[in-house]
Amino acid sequence: MGGAIAKALRTQCGVTQKRLFACDQDNDTLNAAQQAGLICKGFDVSHADARGVGEMLALCDIVFLCLNPSSILRFLEQWKDSFKNNCVVTDIAGTKASIAAAAEKFCEYRKNDNIDFIPGHPMAGAEKSGFNNSSLCNFNEKNYILTPISRNEPNNLEFLKSIIYKMGFSRITEVTPVEHDRKIAFTSQLCHVIAAALIDCESDLEITRFGGGSFEDLTRIAMLNAPMWTELFMENRSALLDRVEQFEKSLDDLKTLINSDNAKELEKRLSLVRERRVEMSRKD
Amino acid sequence: MGGAIAKALRTQCGVTQKRLFACDQDNDTLNAAQQAGLICKGFDVSHADARGVGEMLALCDIVFLCLNPSSILRFLEQWKDSFKNNCVVTDIAGTKASIAAAAEKFCEYRKNDNIDFIPGHPMAGAEKSGFNNSSLCNFNEKNYILTPISRNEPNNLEFLKSIIYKMGFSRITEVTPVEHDRKIAFTSQLCHVIAAALIDCESDLEITRFGGGSFEDLTRIAMLNAPMWTELFMENRSALLDRVEQFEKSLDDLKTLINSDNAKELEKRLSLVRERRVEMSRKD
Repeated sequence: MGGAIAKALRTQCGVTQKRLFACDQDNDTLNAAQQAGLICKGFDVSHADARGVGEMLALCDIVFLCLNPSSILRFLEQWKDSFKNNCVVTDIAGTKASIAAAAEKFCEYRKNDNIDFIPGHPMAGAEKSGFNNSSLCNFNEKNYILTPISRNEPNNLEFLKSIIYKMGFSRITEVTPVEHDRKIAFTSQLCHVIAAALIDCESDLEITRFGGGSFEDLTRIAMLNAPMWTELFMENRSALLDRVEQFEKSLDDLKTLINSDNAKELEKRLSLVRERRVEMSRKD
Repeated sequence: MGGAIAKALRTQCGVTQKRLFACDQDNDTLNAAQQAGLICKGFDVSHADARGVGEMLALCDIVFLCLNPSSILRFLEQWKDSFKNNCVVTDIAGTKASIAAAAEKFCEYRKNDNIDFIPGHPMAGAEKSGFNNSSLCNFNEKNYILTPISRNEPNNLEFLKSIIYKMGFSRITEVTPVEHDRKIAFTSQLCHVIAAALIDCESDLEITRFGGGSFEDLTRIAMLNAPMWTELFMENRSALLDRVEQFEKSLDDLKTLINSDNAKELEKRLSLVRERRVEMSRKD
């Protein structure tokens, strides 16, 4: 995702190569991004002498933290003194409650330096991670969620939103971190749990001979980044388990209708589902 | 699906318009197909004087029965005497046990006339039905399942398979009706039940603001044809309920892992899921 954002900044937002920096724990990724004409310089965060990261942060007017939630908290703790005065910080993590709390704390800590942290979540992942697959992340017509904290400056929020639209996203929704985590537990995490369960319960590797698109569509995201999704599930456990239970209730209702031979009621319920899904598409 | 097959026969298999006939309960559909240069003549099966259907069947060397399972059984019963001697009959129904039994019975009934019925299932549906949406059914690179009965003539089977490949399908798998129904309960029906349950448990019509592709991919098929899917679920109830329960077991396992805070075990299980899904793609 970091690579995809760097590409969008270069190609969609008119940011020149000499004004783009990146840090990563993989030096090959940094070299590839530099050779691709994306970034001016890369800073190896895993290097024993990681002072370069601080040097980089001291140069940046805007910083995208493209890490999982726990790494963002660690990064902020380690480098909180290195961010440039007046800079705007944002992130892309898939859960927002802990990030919003960390953003509050960080802004408070650097309040005399006018640093602003606006938590965000671009809804545009890909099954494959890594810089080599970053072009698979297509931002066009995608959603972006922001969960601003009360102290965010309106002009910084407008600045970040203008960049997001330039990157290709078509809709920005602002909600509280709690609301974000509750919605995302449904649209993203529950869907990944379901896809994983579908693959978990079938051992026939040649089952795709019997696929007509539905199975493929429902399980593509089962090719997930296991460590990242484990963290997201655990981080948002409470909201996710609520959603799993709501889903199980609906599944159980449908199962009961199928088992009861009550074709009329089943058809009625499926018709309501169809209408609701069509209506959701209209709102889209 | 009937319209899509007619188009494929015309454009991919070199069948001329004057050799293609269709019957339907909607006269507008028949007129549209004729005006589109697809069929020579349409026969309105719902018409009080439906004798035309018998006249049509007497002309056909190959017949595609594009109906749901119960309608196929009724059609065969009503028109069993009208099929042309030596003709090859096939169908497209999503469950095969009852169709294979009906095919046996029908072939036995017309055994002196050398009529052959080879049950089949093209894995290439679309959310939207009707002739106007028939171009949404894309057969290219799709799967086709055949469940031949023991009395099917090898040369008829080869003839049907050659047409299927010409229509664009890339893989034909031959299995028993029971095996078909067991596999399809998983790849198709369970997936539709899951998609329906996902929509059933969420009433927020603007939830797509929080969608990043996963939710959309998992619920597209919730825009289902309720009467048809009700019949398919009911027809294949036993195999489908088995699959729902296998899925529920895996879902419950994942839920337990998320709830137990056992990140290590959850990550291990998700890694196995990822590997299995990647392997399935390789076999695809």
